[in-house]
Amino acid sequence: MAGSTFGTIFKITTWGESHGKALGVIIDGCPAGLSLCEEDIQVYLDRRKPGQSSISTPRKESDQVEILSGVFEGRTTGTPISLLIRNTSQKSSDYSEIASYYRPGHADYTFDAKYGFRDYTGGGRSSARETAGRVAAGAIALKLLKELGITVTAYTRSIGPVSADLEHFDRNAIYSTATCMPDSDADSRATAYLKECMMKKDSSGGVIECITTGLPAGIGDPVFEKLDANLAKAIMSIGAVKAVEIGDGIQVSTAVGSENNDTFYYDDGSVSKRTNHAGGILGGISDGSELILRAHIKPTPSIFSPQETINKNGENITVEIKGRHDPVIVPRAVVVVEAMTALTLLDACMLNMTARVDYMKEFYHNV
Amino acid sequence: MAGSTFGTIFKITTWGESHGKALGVIIDGCPAGLSLCEEDIQVYLDRRKPGQSSISTPRKESDQVEILSGVFEGRTTGTPISLLIRNTSQKSSDYSEIASYYRPGHADYTFDAKYGFRDYTGGGRSSARETAGRVAAGAIALKLLKELGITVTAYTRSIGPVSADLEHFDRNAIYSTATCMPDSDADSRATAYLKECMMKKDSSGGVIECITTGLPAGIGDPVFEKLDANLAKAIMSIGAVKAVEIGDGIQVSTAVGSENNDTFYYDDGSVSKRTNHAGGILGGISDGSELILRAHIKPTPSIFSPQETINKNGENITVEIKGRHDPVIVPRAVVVVEAMTALTLLDACMLNMTARVDYMKEFYHNV
Amino acid sequence: MAGSTFGTIFKITTWGESHGKALGVIIDGCPAGLSLCEEDIQVYLDRRKPGQSSISTPRKESDQVEILSGVFEGRTTGTPISLLIRNTSQKSSDYSEIASYYRPGHADYTFDAKYGFRDYTGGGRSSARETAGRVAAGAIALKLLKELGITVTAYTRSIGPVSADLEHFDRNAIYSTATCMPDSDADSRATAYLKECMMKKDSSGGVIECITTGLPAGIGDPVFEKLDANLAKAIMSIGAVKAVEIGDGIQVSTAVGSENNDTFYYDDGSVSKRTNHAGGILGGISDGSELILRAHIKPTPSIFSPQETINKNGENITVEIKGRHDPVIVPRAVVVVEAMTALTLLDACMLNMTARVDYMKEFYHNV
Amino acid sequence: MAGSTFGTIFKITTWGESHGKALGVIIDGCPAGLSLCEEDIQVYLDRRKPGQSSISTPRKESDQVEILSGVFEGRTTGTPISLLIRNTSQKSSDYSEIASYYRPGHADYTFDAKYGFRDYTGGGRSSARETAGRVAAGAIALKLLKELGITVTAYTRSIGPVSADLEHFDRNAIYSTATCMPDSDADSRATAYLKECMMKKDSSGGVIECITTGLPAGIGDPVFEKLDANLAKAIMSIGAVKAVEIGDGIQVSTAVGSENNDTFYYDDGSVSKRTNHAGGILGGISDGSELILRAHIKPTPSIFSPQETINKNGENITVEIKGRHDPVIVPRAVVVVEAMTALTLLDACMLNMTARVDYMKEFYHNV
Repeated sequence: MAGSTFGTIFKITTWGESHGKALGVIIDGCPAGLSLCEEDIQVYLDRRKPGQSSISTPRKESDQVEILSGVFEGRTTGTPISLLIRNTSQKSSDYSEIASYYRPGHADYTFDAKYGFRDYTGGGRSSARETAGRVAAGAIALKLLKELGITVTAYTRSIGPVSADLEHFDRNAIYSTATCMPDSDADSRATAYLKECMMKKDSSGGVIECITTGLPAGIGDPVFEKLDANLAKAIMSIGAVKAVEIGDGIQVSTAVGSENNDTFYYDDGSVSKRTNHAGGILGGISDGSELILRAHIKPTPSIFSPQETINKNGENITVEIKGRHDPVIVPRAVVVVEAMTALTLLDACMLNMTARVDYMKEFYHNV
Repeated sequence: MAGSTFGTIFKITTWGESHGKALGVIIDGCPAGLSLCEEDIQVYLDRRKPGQSSISTPRKESDQVEILSGVFEGRTTGTPISLLIRNTSQKSSDYSEIASYYRPGHADYTFDAKYGFRDYTGGGRSSARETAGRVAAGAIALKLLKELGITVTAYTRSIGPVSADLEHFDRNAIYSTATCMPDSDADSRATAYLKECMMKKDSSGGVIECITTGLPAGIGDPVFEKLDANLAKAIMSIGAVKAVEIGDGIQVSTAVGSENNDTFYYDDGSVSKRTNHAGGILGGISDGSELILRAHIKPTPSIFSPQETINKNGENITVEIKGRHDPVIVPRAVVVVEAMTALTLLDACMLNMTARVDYMKEFYHNV
Repeated sequence: MAGSTFGTIFKITTWGESHGKALGVIIDGCPAGLSLCEEDIQVYLDRRKPGQSSISTPRKESDQVEILSGVFEGRTTGTPISLLIRNTSQKSSDYSEIASYYRPGHADYTFDAKYGFRDYTGGGRSSARETAGRVAAGAIALKLLKELGITVTAYTRSIGPVSADLEHFDRNAIYSTATCMPDSDADSRATAYLKECMMKKDSSGGVIECITTGLPAGIGDPVFEKLDANLAKAIMSIGAVKAVEIGDGIQVSTAVGSENNDTFYYDDGSVSKRTNHAGGILGGISDGSELILRAHIKPTPSIFSPQETINKNGENITVEIKGRHDPVIVPRAVVVVEAMTALTLLDACMLNMTARVDYMKEFYHNV
Repeated sequence: MAGSTFGTIFKITTWGESHGKALGVIIDGCPAGLSLCEEDIQVYLDRRKPGQSSISTPRKESDQVEILSGVFEGRTTGTPISLLIRNTSQKSSDYSEIASYYRPGHADYTFDAKYGFRDYTGGGRSSARETAGRVAAGAIALKLLKELGITVTAYTRSIGPVSADLEHFDRNAIYSTATCMPDSDADSRATAYLKECMMKKDSSGGVIECITTGLPAGIGDPVFEKLDANLAKAIMSIGAVKAVEIGDGIQVSTAVGSENNDTFYYDDGSVSKRTNHAGGILGGISDGSELILRAHIKPTPSIFSPQETINKNGENITVEIKGRHDPVIVPRAVVVVEAMTALTLLDACMLNMTARVDYMKEFYHNV
């Protein structure tokens, strides 16, 4: 089935395999008139690319983006924006061996079960490289949201047992540390933990948190298109995510109502809340507070210690995965979470513009 | 925006407010030839209805379903099935007071922010009564899945601090206990805890778990339409859910790869896994194991102790919510989780039928 | 498959069989704040109902509409509007005979081929009664368009060989004549022709034309969601329509460019066209002129003269259709064309509100 | 809005401007296992490209297609297929002049009205070059349909006053004549007519007909997703199409029922029809007969004689369009009609596979 399209009005379609000729994304439904150049997108892709630190695979992927359509004289035209990233660092030979067996924790077996065969080079379509297209599209969504006064910021909340201390939140650290934590001290401890994992030929999971500020109240829809429902889908669609939390998340199940309810009050005439257990969403609609979500990411399934598994000949075998793999997925997925959040919010903001007859009347009486 | 439709092929549209004339659901895309009568649906609605125990609101909602279309001589015809539930127990007067203020933890404020006004009687469209339509549609999905050998079972995993002990899983207890726990002993302790909450004019959260057996490998799609992504959306779209976990869920973030990877092996010729940390999904596609998910439900926001909030006149006020409210949402939401899971899985099973050219050739050469 | 939903933002879902308990429609995505009562809808349903003239079936269908949800204190709330029409005049016995054979020109055979069986009473889901839901939803779209200054008017352009003379266009005649022609003289001649058809136990086709005024330039989208493409789908989805024309329609194929191009000019500062061969659409986007379309409707397939056909036992047979059938479909379909046009245009107007970044900035800086 | 995606399961997204860097299409939802190479697609693109005859623009567009993803070892993998066509023959200077004014019969004015500005080079996104992506995707749909025994053939039915004589239908002539008529004699007369048009600095319209054989009964859905409704949208979405007919099309409006009804009979045990006025569709569902449709194409709006129009400075002006333009759109649009028909039918065939519970049971009991 067609599973590579996301969004209702601001609609993106990603394509491409890890080791194919190229990968990319089509953004359809981007409003006309947004100033846009390749550099606007490249800065986000650069945050995703590997080979940037001692805790990242030394594999190089330049991920250079090219705008092929939808931008004229520096501005979006309202027609589809096609973004292309040529693959340059594929070594298909690294993967010839895995054609015959199913790596634990990977999608090898399920792809074969579904399609009868698979592009096994570098994980094919199930590779994390697929997210390059999401990040490129997300860069545009983030730019447009900024024009509306909305800022989306994701960062590493924890890696294995090491959590960032948000009391000393340091925004710059997100972009300068290898772990993308907003806390240099936690970054050091997490890096030490990851090196330990690497020595043990093992890998680590972690948590990404994402905060959105400036989102007005009223965004999102009741019932199936709740803002949190669409965010949950967006985030869970990122490979390796196994849980999504909104606001207090899992803690609500052990809380009592008198604690968990957020008290409304008027703060100099405007509606405010004394706490934000809800994470900025009530009944699927934004309440004007910070929007808070978290993604729990599993440890990299490609580990270098021997593992039991099966091959296509019906044999139980033991394998040792080779190649170049990150000991943790989290830091490179931070910008993906940011991108998916932005795409979801922008689409909801667009849909919200027709929520009232008065909005339509004002618009069409002014056209 | 249109937010009341769910699904791609097996598509449902719910409608109706808590205290309106009626509510219901249209199921479009149900295959022809399924034996169906009102009783098939009623049994599920009866699991959702209130007033059934000491820990439930004494409010009565008979929730009697009527099939208005799409069934002819006892079988579905392939055309839309319209299900109607007349509202009978509305006491709009109970709610007249809340028209003027915003209840903490409810969607009152966000609805007004979005639409400019709201149907405030009984929560209007944001009431949990909306889920009656989902359950009615889910009953049909569950019946169809059963024909394919797929069984979906949800139950209460925990209420506040009290967890069911799955070592002594008792399926019957799900349907006979007030808490819908598969463990009578835990049910007793949870009931005691809830009574304590009620005495304190407070409420409790909890966790619902859902297990699917018989789902073949290969269901779901890569990228945005991952099976877990669609399940996350489906479950998060249920009011009061604040976190969704698949398989080990939040535990993966502190796990290491060597533990978290599930080992494949051949079990008498067929593919099996020694563990199921993944919860039955790899790369967004089912792997043939049990599918496991959990929903974290917040405490009922309607509590009877005094709460600070705001009214529409710009005043900070203190309110005491009246009416008939459950001290915990969890037990009545169990069947809703079951329904949403079934709807998601059935749709994915339908979409999967065109995954291979060979499937199409076999189908059309036999027509 | 789910085929009963139409629209992207203003989304309607119809349901119901000709001789079932009821039929209806859900309108989801209607903006909040539209004043709406049952009478607003009833006037449109009354234009569709049979039994109103000597050239219409004497079959009575009261088609009384009931609003079940989505309206509170006389205004739409932004949530789904459920409209119900109870069936009252079903005589299933009239149809028991046709269960066994396939009426020429009807969907009996194709429904059986698709679904394996069918609800044969009154044509089931393929009955023209299905359009009652469209008309009810269309009434709301028409009311909302009117608030935006847009008026949609359909009428009978011709019946068999008799065409209305648009030089003497009489708007009142559309609503007062049995043929819905805007020309009383043509109405008389068409009525005479239809009576002749009835005497011969035969039926007639005809043409419906629909004119929209007040539609601003810029509505509709390039490529697949062209305004004319969506109108063509909307109109062709009405049973019995076999051709759809926009503007000059079929005449363009024998025209030359110098005639067919419409000349732009400034008329007191605003853009105008000297002719309107294009029917108000260029490149799939409205150009600010009148929008013109035509639907060609086939003769009623239910005729009373003997016809050869087949039954389900593999036999070639001769049948004589009984029951109460209109000698022409056109007059009752006029309001359906109006409804489908309005639904398409309103949805396009809603989608257009996000066409430019500036629109979004203005909206969100004012919220 | 996002208007560049077509299809529900077999979903295509086109992108690219006439004079941008490249254009292309993503095909998402193509079943796995279809043998596919670039040459399979190139043959269809070659039918669309200009510069092939005396009645076509001498403009050269090589339209060389490159497969960037979704194919592995010569077979489709089930993941998105990205097809790229680099633009090579753009002479943007030809168009610099038209930036300031609105060409009659083109989308220049409507694009500006919608988006505030436009890519004016070569018509930008509203250029017929956009259809290259449709043809490339259609090539894949046509190949897959062939595997199911379904053949789609489009040809020029008429150009201006000259019609092909179908009594002497010559399939080869479609591919060998400059007009794509299945009748060499008519081709000669049409060519003469077109040369006359060119001498007069004028252009001609025409009709394309498309016949599908091998389509089983039961394809398509009742109500809004009728097969003819989706075909009407598909065909009307091709620029320059102003009318779409199914079967007898416009002739039904002057026919009587006794002529227009097609008689069913058993032909050696299988269902057949003595006539095919319906064009193979009854109630929106295929009846097993040949599927017949026609598209009426307007004359090329770019003519070389002087035309009155307006510029962006508010002035009425006279312009003479320069550049390289075909005197008739029809021959190059033939393969586009074939492509859009194939895309629509394939999607409907895929959706049909879940029409009955028995189909699902058979499929899942065999997986």
